[in-house]
Amino acid sequence: MNPYQAPLGEMRFLLEHVFNAQATWQGLASLDGMVDMDTALAILEEAAKLNSELVHPINRAGDEEGVGFSDGRVTTPKGYKEAYNAFVEGGWVGLSGDPEYGGMGMPKMLGVLVDEMGYSACNAFNLYGSLTAGAALAINAHGTEELKSTYLPKLYSGEWAGAMDMTEPQAGSDLRHIRTRAEPQEDGSYLITGSKIFITGGDQDLTENVIHLVLAKISGSNTLSLFLVPKIGVDDQGNLTEPNGVSVGSIEHKMGLKGSATCVMNFDSARGWLIGRENKGLACMFTMMNYERLAIGIQGLGSAQAAVQMASDYARERLQGNAVGSTAAADPILVHGDVRRMLLTTRTLTDAGRALAVHTGKQLDLAKFADDDAVKTKAGRYVGLLTPVAKAFLTDRGLDITIMAQQVFGGHGYIRETGIEQLVRDTRIAQIYEGTNGIQAIDFLGRKVTGDNLATVKEFIAEHIEVLSDTCDKANSLRVGFADFVAVATWINDNKLSRPALINSVAVEMLDAFGYLLYGYYHLLMRDAARAADSEFAAAKAAYCDYYFAKLMPRADALLRAAKAGDELLMSLPETCF
Amino acid sequence: MNPYQAPLGEMRFLLEHVFNAQATWQGLASLDGMVDMDTALAILEEAAKLNSELVHPINRAGDEEGVGFSDGRVTTPKGYKEAYNAFVEGGWVGLSGDPEYGGMGMPKMLGVLVDEMGYSACNAFNLYGSLTAGAALAINAHGTEELKSTYLPKLYSGEWAGAMDMTEPQAGSDLRHIRTRAEPQEDGSYLITGSKIFITGGDQDLTENVIHLVLAKISGSNTLSLFLVPKIGVDDQGNLTEPNGVSVGSIEHKMGLKGSATCVMNFDSARGWLIGRENKGLACMFTMMNYERLAIGIQGLGSAQAAVQMASDYARERLQGNAVGSTAAADPILVHGDVRRMLLTTRTLTDAGRALAVHTGKQLDLAKFADDDAVKTKAGRYVGLLTPVAKAFLTDRGLDITIMAQQVFGGHGYIRETGIEQLVRDTRIAQIYEGTNGIQAIDFLGRKVTGDNLATVKEFIAEHIEVLSDTCDKANSLRVGFADFVAVATWINDNKLSRPALINSVAVEMLDAFGYLLYGYYHLLMRDAARAADSEFAAAKAAYCDYYFAKLMPRADALLRAAKAGDELLMSLPETCF
Repeated sequence: MNPYQAPLGEMRFLLEHVFNAQATWQGLASLDGMVDMDTALAILEEAAKLNSELVHPINRAGDEEGVGFSDGRVTTPKGYKEAYNAFVEGGWVGLSGDPEYGGMGMPKMLGVLVDEMGYSACNAFNLYGSLTAGAALAINAHGTEELKSTYLPKLYSGEWAGAMDMTEPQAGSDLRHIRTRAEPQEDGSYLITGSKIFITGGDQDLTENVIHLVLAKISGSNTLSLFLVPKIGVDDQGNLTEPNGVSVGSIEHKMGLKGSATCVMNFDSARGWLIGRENKGLACMFTMMNYERLAIGIQGLGSAQAAVQMASDYARERLQGNAVGSTAAADPILVHGDVRRMLLTTRTLTDAGRALAVHTGKQLDLAKFADDDAVKTKAGRYVGLLTPVAKAFLTDRGLDITIMAQQVFGGHGYIRETGIEQLVRDTRIAQIYEGTNGIQAIDFLGRKVTGDNLATVKEFIAEHIEVLSDTCDKANSLRVGFADFVAVATWINDNKLSRPALINSVAVEMLDAFGYLLYGYYHLLMRDAARAADSEFAAAKAAYCDYYFAKLMPRADALLRAAKAGDELLMSLPETCF
Repeated sequence: MNPYQAPLGEMRFLLEHVFNAQATWQGLASLDGMVDMDTALAILEEAAKLNSELVHPINRAGDEEGVGFSDGRVTTPKGYKEAYNAFVEGGWVGLSGDPEYGGMGMPKMLGVLVDEMGYSACNAFNLYGSLTAGAALAINAHGTEELKSTYLPKLYSGEWAGAMDMTEPQAGSDLRHIRTRAEPQEDGSYLITGSKIFITGGDQDLTENVIHLVLAKISGSNTLSLFLVPKIGVDDQGNLTEPNGVSVGSIEHKMGLKGSATCVMNFDSARGWLIGRENKGLACMFTMMNYERLAIGIQGLGSAQAAVQMASDYARERLQGNAVGSTAAADPILVHGDVRRMLLTTRTLTDAGRALAVHTGKQLDLAKFADDDAVKTKAGRYVGLLTPVAKAFLTDRGLDITIMAQQVFGGHGYIRETGIEQLVRDTRIAQIYEGTNGIQAIDFLGRKVTGDNLATVKEFIAEHIEVLSDTCDKANSLRVGFADFVAVATWINDNKLSRPALINSVAVEMLDAFGYLLYGYYHLLMRDAARAADSEFAAAKAAYCDYYFAKLMPRADALLRAAKAGDELLMSLPETCF
């Protein structure tokens, strides 16, 4: 296995030249003075070192060993504890956390790049910190001052971990069916009873406490509320007290992500505290969902980047066949057109994916930190539009990319020792959890695109695509492509009431079409931004842009044609046809 | 896990109504009287019973347990031995074998359907018999009468197994680099010395002997010859004698296919016998390659069919969300447009895939059994054209289908217990071994399409597509699609000499485009053939045809546009871009 090398040059290029990080940060009062490009680059370098030297080395062994479970106790694989200690000592859990409670307050457009490295280095390990950051976000947004001051410092420091407890056997994508109950107590707390499944990081042996955010119904209500339920009780001074009726029923045996504990959690009159208002649990979850969904998108991106590196290295080392006219005994397989096709496809999708991640992160930062209400509101709408795309498209393409990279390895790609097959297995879940990619697409098309009669998507296109002064064929084709997208989306919007199954039926095709078009936009941006750089870098970016438009962009058109075929072909069929 | 149910109705429909099996067999002297539809249906029913009741039940446990290896001995998982005994007792290994040596002489268009069931039931188990049948084929085609009469009856009966020993660490896709040597002996035998890797079924505990077909270089030569090398020596009477210097170095730990032993094989002055002529080993291998490659295509098809069934069952059982206007607490997820999209995509690709398998099998039968030389030769050319498509397209779509079916299961799809993730892992290898799908595509475009300046492909299109009297939109679009394919292929053919990397660079896109077009053709055929059947069946086939053309066929156009972009975008880039 090759050592993981963070793509620091690419990351810096996006921040500095494509998305103008420095100017963005200077324009935001809460960030100005806290972070500049020098700080950002120092953070990226430190994260690269940590992930290359400490996290990546535990990745393969953790997959072989997996998480253990006996006598109700979860044990993480060898080396996880040491890596976790180094990880929390660096303050990485609180990187984007609220400085008032011990977070570092760093912008998300930087955070996504750190997260990418984490997922490239080890999918399973990185999830533990990611879930904690997500839990902290929800507590910070909706918790009382007392909850915040008690829990946030310990979560940001990584002393305690967080977990999200939503799914139950009968309640997956459809959370209405949750049965976990919450009994109000006289002291204002609640006693939580019920069972949750698929709880990532539900328990582990890395931290002394786990803070569960549990969706439950208050007795007498059929609507969801959100509760903070610590595994071990916490007194007023923040000291641990007694176990709190929270136990692990079992752990799941999964296709991959074997170093990450996926738990069945049992709550037996566990004491919890309301986060936000009663019966508003879903709204509280939604606050953090954009962050969490983006984070899972980054899992796809991180896996893709790792796969691209491995395939690229292998294609240089492996000698089979000859280049045209070569008289060598054998040449590296990199000389073959088909191998280059695979490498360029994976590379151009990954580079554009990173641009999507940073762009979405930038909008999140503007929505959070901007002083101007108009800027803040618009960024919030763009976050809404881009987030389901980032979650679904980054993870769908992430799987495609790991599979294509595996193909570069030939037979060796199927052998566990090589490591590339682990990436395929690990990243597969990212298309499913945190809202399946089908759910993301329905959110995208139903709420974000047609929900406001295309106002946001049209504004986004006007601001990003129509302003391109570029008159090259590619920019022109991009304008045509987005116009086609708007035309089909308009047709859907016009028919959504008379055909109530239409959005559900064509949502994935529409999200994918938008994703491929958006990636074209990012390739144009990167090509143009690179013109100021040295000529080799600029030539590479131009070549990637050419490749992407010629080879991959035609997919957008095929998807729009499929979407335009509508829902009748699916919905008119009797059940016996399935 | 749901019990596997062979799709006997679909299989019968293809044989009887789409590809006119009975008339085909009656027209072939070697088959007439040996097989008719009644025999064929009895064989299919028997195979269905065996695979449902004996083979499928060992599938999951075999994946968990895997193949064992200690003290140089390979052990298959629990239950494999019993299933294997039942399998060979039924004579299934020799189903398509030469009757002169104990085979059943059944046509391939029937054999592919039996093989599909085997792979649906258990990928790993079915390989053992498949490799044996392949080895027997090569021995029958090129071996001496003595080798044939000694080895074929034992192989057809399944008493002994066969294995193909080609790959070495430095010789994968590029077999020139093979180092295994063969020293000629005075008695006409050879002593074989060398090491092979990735040998499927290289050893096991199911049979008392394993017959290896080994590619090696005769001392003094740099060209490959093919040798028969038994694990245990065999005397003139066919009795086992002494161990023959053939040993297992280790077994591979793989992403999937864990019940199949993938061995490192060591040959230490092992006695072997030449198959075919000296230095003509590759030609001998090619004889069986069309059969073997088709068999691996069927692995993709079998996995796809199993996945389609599982997803379809789950979509009926799983209650989440509601149909439009439903007042139920929750409906089966089958009511959702996006779930229907996944089910119809997987179903229409699988049904067309089975048609491709039977069609290719039929051409193989004509090429083997036809008395008329013109018929035989043309069928041989069609086999050449269709085989790389069947191998690559069935396995590429096979993986797509298993992944999409897994998505239908949501979070449960990622859990090992559910079983669907095993299909993804098991079928992934089929895109790689027996010639990677990139190699298949280069064979397709370089040898089969442009090798004779498009003569065969044009003849194929004229005979199958242009004759369609149908004037519906779909038939018209199919004619246009194939015309586009021919136009791009002609451009490639015209430029292949001046651009020697062109074929390698665009081969996969061209094979995929051809595959999607061909599937459209099969959907038209099936729709039309079903018109004679009951109205529900006919309506279903018409609906699948509509769905396929509207939703999936646009991919062919996107692929042709990508291919038309040529090779320069890939080949002009410096190595630093990869």
